[in-house]
Amino acid sequence: METKSENASFGGVQGVYAHASEATGTDMTFGLFLPEEARFGPVPILWYLSGLTCTHENAMTKAGAQQFAAEYGIAICFPDTSPRGEGVADDDSFDMGQGASYYVNSTQDPWAKHFRMWDYVTEELPRLIGQEFAVDLDRQAITGHSMGGHGALTIGMGLGSERFASISAFSPMCRTMDSDWGTRQLGLYLGDDREAWRKHDASEVMRERGFDGPVLVDTGTADQFWDKLKPGALAGAMADARQQGSFRLQPGYDHSYFFVSTFIEDHIRFHAEALYG
Amino acid sequence: METKSENASFGGVQGVYAHASEATGTDMTFGLFLPEEARFGPVPILWYLSGLTCTHENAMTKAGAQQFAAEYGIAICFPDTSPRGEGVADDDSFDMGQGASYYVNSTQDPWAKHFRMWDYVTEELPRLIGQEFAVDLDRQAITGHSMGGHGALTIGMGLGSERFASISAFSPMCRTMDSDWGTRQLGLYLGDDREAWRKHDASEVMRERGFDGPVLVDTGTADQFWDKLKPGALAGAMADARQQGSFRLQPGYDHSYFFVSTFIEDHIRFHAEALYG
Repeated sequence: METKSENASFGGVQGVYAHASEATGTDMTFGLFLPEEARFGPVPILWYLSGLTCTHENAMTKAGAQQFAAEYGIAICFPDTSPRGEGVADDDSFDMGQGASYYVNSTQDPWAKHFRMWDYVTEELPRLIGQEFAVDLDRQAITGHSMGGHGALTIGMGLGSERFASISAFSPMCRTMDSDWGTRQLGLYLGDDREAWRKHDASEVMRERGFDGPVLVDTGTADQFWDKLKPGALAGAMADARQQGSFRLQPGYDHSYFFVSTFIEDHIRFHAEALYG
Repeated sequence: METKSENASFGGVQGVYAHASEATGTDMTFGLFLPEEARFGPVPILWYLSGLTCTHENAMTKAGAQQFAAEYGIAICFPDTSPRGEGVADDDSFDMGQGASYYVNSTQDPWAKHFRMWDYVTEELPRLIGQEFAVDLDRQAITGHSMGGHGALTIGMGLGSERFASISAFSPMCRTMDSDWGTRQLGLYLGDDREAWRKHDASEVMRERGFDGPVLVDTGTADQFWDKLKPGALAGAMADARQQGSFRLQPGYDHSYFFVSTFIEDHIRFHAEALYG
């Protein structure tokens, strides 16, 4: 593991690290904020999965998360959104390929060789972080934005409350099986058998398994990608499944980090209550 | 004036606007955060001047300022750091020319034609914002980072307490007349007569005029540009001038926005106390 940078931030350290990933077969970069408390012992960790076109860096610099992670003594990990580099398959569109993994393990050529982000985020990266940093893997929570909100919901419910104390999402993709952001991509990554897609559609997983813990979702009413996100599908699924949690629509807010940063305090407090509960 | 974007943020609006500037003879872009209170009447305004290579956008997305501007009901303006575009003089180095105005009115070819950022920031842009937005020009304060900290200090003291209630700076360039960040640039913008440089050196102006109001300066002890910034020159000048205010060195922090965002709350509260007196 290589340290790319470490900056003091709100009494803690915002680091960026790179390592050779077995899961993806590429070098991967991630951001990790450690609050001051990590100097004295392991702290809980919140995973933040980012959206289309993002790297490890966007949320790390624009979400304003460190302030509240420091306040509550929680680490935050910002993984990259896909494998990258020469020799890694890509697509001309911004919403497929590099920067657009949809957090699946691909089974189809040419994607299957490197696009194994589900395994990377759920197995390899937590293991590495547990070994290298003062992080308590018995206390994890997960959140994300847009495609990363989809990732947080599908991974969070997929691994369940044995892994995560709580799940939240900002403007998540809610209905990937039936959306311009999802249908084409799941087909390319996973093939034609739509049964294999279901664990990667937040509304499907909500109806099927739900989550044995609290769920918080925020979406802006002025979100410019509303028709692709399909918030109604998840809101309906949450209600039908009697899922504990909140689905909130924030008036006038859009899809940007101006929205995320406005509500990040709420989300981190929500996770802190579950993690320290 | 053209609206480039407007995003809801912490109950207010983060806008980006462009206009044809008389001062620079170019199109100029700026960011303006208006808190919710601006819907009901004019609010005080804090100017945030940015550093080398920045545009209007860096601080607007990375400083985390909106949260506290909203809390205290203060507008924040994020001007660009120089004129830009084809036909505007530039230099191969990142610290001269476009993105590196040093907030002066240049008198030397080829810079004098467009590089009139002192006039732009002190006259044209406040006038425009006073006309177009619910901002109270009788209540202004100024801050900035690095080259923008230099700008905030030199402009703030230059125009004095009749214009500004308070001045602050993050890791400012403190000694431009005698630094790799300053000597060459002031020579190119202003010519060989060093007397003309003095109003653009924060330590000189501090010794000569000071400021009839509070001044707050924060610099990180791990700042990687310490030798260029020369904080000691300004700290000494402030003490010698018996300037009211605080010069703080923050242990372990560097020059980045991870530093700025950690202390932006302090700075906005400091200005709020002066603005609301």
